[in-house]
Amino acid sequence: MAGTRLDRWHGAYSRRASGMTASAIRALFAVANRPEVVSLAGGMPTLEALPLDDVAEVAARCVRDDYAASLQYGSAQGDPVAREQVTDVMRDVAVSCHPDEVVMTTGSQHALDLLTRIMVDPGDVVLVESPSYVGALGVFRSYEAAIVHLPTDHAGLDPEAVVTAVRRERDRGRRVKALYVVPHHQNPSGGTTSIERRQRLVELCREERVLLVEDDPYAHLGFSSDPLPAMQSMDPETVVYLGSFSKTFAPGLRVGWVLAPTAIRAKLVLAAEASVLCPSAFGQRFVASYLASTDWRSRVKVLREVYRERRDAMLEALDRYLPAASYTRPAGGFFTWVDLPDGIDGAAMLPRAVQGRVAYVPGTAFFDDDQGGSHVRLSFCFPPPERITEGVRRLAAVVDSELELREAFGDALTDSPLATHEHGNVDRPPTDTT
Amino acid sequence: MAGTRLDRWHGAYSRRASGMTASAIRALFAVANRPEVVSLAGGMPTLEALPLDDVAEVAARCVRDDYAASLQYGSAQGDPVAREQVTDVMRDVAVSCHPDEVVMTTGSQHALDLLTRIMVDPGDVVLVESPSYVGALGVFRSYEAAIVHLPTDHAGLDPEAVVTAVRRERDRGRRVKALYVVPHHQNPSGGTTSIERRQRLVELCREERVLLVEDDPYAHLGFSSDPLPAMQSMDPETVVYLGSFSKTFAPGLRVGWVLAPTAIRAKLVLAAEASVLCPSAFGQRFVASYLASTDWRSRVKVLREVYRERRDAMLEALDRYLPAASYTRPAGGFFTWVDLPDGIDGAAMLPRAVQGRVAYVPGTAFFDDDQGGSHVRLSFCFPPPERITEGVRRLAAVVDSELELREAFGDALTDSPLATHEHGNVDRPPTDTT
Repeated sequence: MAGTRLDRWHGAYSRRASGMTASAIRALFAVANRPEVVSLAGGMPTLEALPLDDVAEVAARCVRDDYAASLQYGSAQGDPVAREQVTDVMRDVAVSCHPDEVVMTTGSQHALDLLTRIMVDPGDVVLVESPSYVGALGVFRSYEAAIVHLPTDHAGLDPEAVVTAVRRERDRGRRVKALYVVPHHQNPSGGTTSIERRQRLVELCREERVLLVEDDPYAHLGFSSDPLPAMQSMDPETVVYLGSFSKTFAPGLRVGWVLAPTAIRAKLVLAAEASVLCPSAFGQRFVASYLASTDWRSRVKVLREVYRERRDAMLEALDRYLPAASYTRPAGGFFTWVDLPDGIDGAAMLPRAVQGRVAYVPGTAFFDDDQGGSHVRLSFCFPPPERITEGVRRLAAVVDSELELREAFGDALTDSPLATHEHGNVDRPPTDTT
Repeated sequence: MAGTRLDRWHGAYSRRASGMTASAIRALFAVANRPEVVSLAGGMPTLEALPLDDVAEVAARCVRDDYAASLQYGSAQGDPVAREQVTDVMRDVAVSCHPDEVVMTTGSQHALDLLTRIMVDPGDVVLVESPSYVGALGVFRSYEAAIVHLPTDHAGLDPEAVVTAVRRERDRGRRVKALYVVPHHQNPSGGTTSIERRQRLVELCREERVLLVEDDPYAHLGFSSDPLPAMQSMDPETVVYLGSFSKTFAPGLRVGWVLAPTAIRAKLVLAAEASVLCPSAFGQRFVASYLASTDWRSRVKVLREVYRERRDAMLEALDRYLPAASYTRPAGGFFTWVDLPDGIDGAAMLPRAVQGRVAYVPGTAFFDDDQGGSHVRLSFCFPPPERITEGVRRLAAVVDSELELREAFGDALTDSPLATHEHGNVDRPPTDTT
């Protein structure tokens, strides 16, 4: 790492910190953040569909009528009113639970952090999909987990591969701690785990005594279908469910939640207390008051329409401009997963794409091993449809010129400092270059 | 731990999770939370002095005029506008810094969590005051640090003891990673580290290459004096400074910050990203907008008056009702540290105190070793003066009856399940019993 010799604390860091390094892609995104670049990289939700006047009034009321709770320290488990609201949201994924069973967190990312903290020792195995959510890989790595990718198709993880992997890893003397799944409109593939697969995964995890971590931020964002039942509803003792208001309301509040078996829940609360004392009372009361005072399910329907239109714009543009690529056709969520034409490396191409005024996330970011080189993740959540079309058009032009170069010079072109693993979270563009 | 045999995940937890256990005192606080109990236990700031109409308008404006930033994901380092405001706040402790040097966090507790994560391997030594902040001890323990208490007097830590301890621990083959200090109106002693001690501690830490962690939430809450210069101002390469808006504005927003040497800062940002993606943009913009639009320094002066009056009420009541005890006379902050009359164990007495309708935090909570048994922490921050007086009167009655019992039965009374270490954070009363 450059600059190490100038760091007088070099040598004083923890072992786990040595894996925390900034990536070349991160630096590039600072440039990609310029307005002339169409970013198909970030996972930022659209906020235009929010009823802003109502939301402003909710925020004001949280201060005026509720300051003694909203501006004060709260419990580490989270605000009781917010937890009550969560039980209502959970009905949509066929879960009936009690507010006492809910733990509120600083976004569902913090739930994942706390869960990994209490479950994973260095070298313990976490099984994940192929590809898997970059932010989850970052947490697992930060606790020095051994991440093992399993075969995944359009219906989700291959259940039999779970059994094979668990046994293989145990034979190697490793402890298999968790199976991590994003079951609805997965980030980055856009795929949804079928109901049969859900049942089978729950069954296998119960039999093999592997904790099933169900990370479900996109449950409500199916374009033409209601959510499937959560795996948590099939076996609350085997599954930890993570929920989020970042996609259906606002990520700026950092409000998520966890449902977990009793003993795990108790440890999560203690870990949360050590980590942040308590989640933001204001954020929680704000969300709870929004949910209680607006017809939020109708609002979510509006959101689905917005995202469906953007998904359509993206697929139409891909059909038109990038027919040589193949890509998923997601039925919800924010992302499509693109397999580039033969021989093109998504990470290596990124600098030229940014030069061509379009940004995406290279597929390598969604793997802890050497997969993903031929893939990129394209987001349709944030830019309006005409920008999406323009972005894909630019991307296609970059791909075309890559193909031309390859034809002229062959394999001599594949080396690039970016054609390596990506270890940062790239769901939002950094707003700083520091 | 009770219930372990019912936990099907027993044996699947990480090693660090085994130290996370709920305490007997925690259960007692659920009872202490009843309105008839005067709580001198919590470290909750008063919120009555806030200009609520103005604050409500700030919250509404953050939505109406600023939703694209405040409700969206932000950078892991924190919002640039909030970081700019922090540089202004830092001038009061003689620090001049650039917004690029500031990292915003989910309260300063999360700063401490992230810092420990990047610095401390299991078994590494963290040096702390005697007594030390219970929340910091909780974080250090959660990363399996070896906590070493050093002699501390009214002017702060004994600097020569730092050198002795560093050498002794190194001779034992341990790595000494940090010295943790709360320099203004310490929690729980109320003491302030003198300017001479500050200079000496910085010097020694630089020489011994030990990171000095300066946790400074009470800097602005001196009753009759301005803050002393931060140790960070004396050597920015040796000191990490943690600041908080929880005491001067509102803890419900969970907004704190860190100033750290460049290389440590970069790692803190990466660790923050893995942990929560980014701190709440809404919380940060809310605080920044409050600071920018109100004369917050005048508001802090009002707060100081409120707390000074409460401190006076507490000291007068202690002088009057508990003359057999000795206690600190803090010049700021939230707490006084009481040495109970001979032979009384603060932890063992707590159940009887709660029965007598008064609560406090036993001194053992502020130590990782076997010290603190004869001490209790009393908070004067939250209850109004007449409740403080009444609380101390009740406490004195409980102490008197303990003394009578001791006179009658002697040492046979010291055993209690509560006369043990307290491993939870007790700066706020839990609002749930789950």
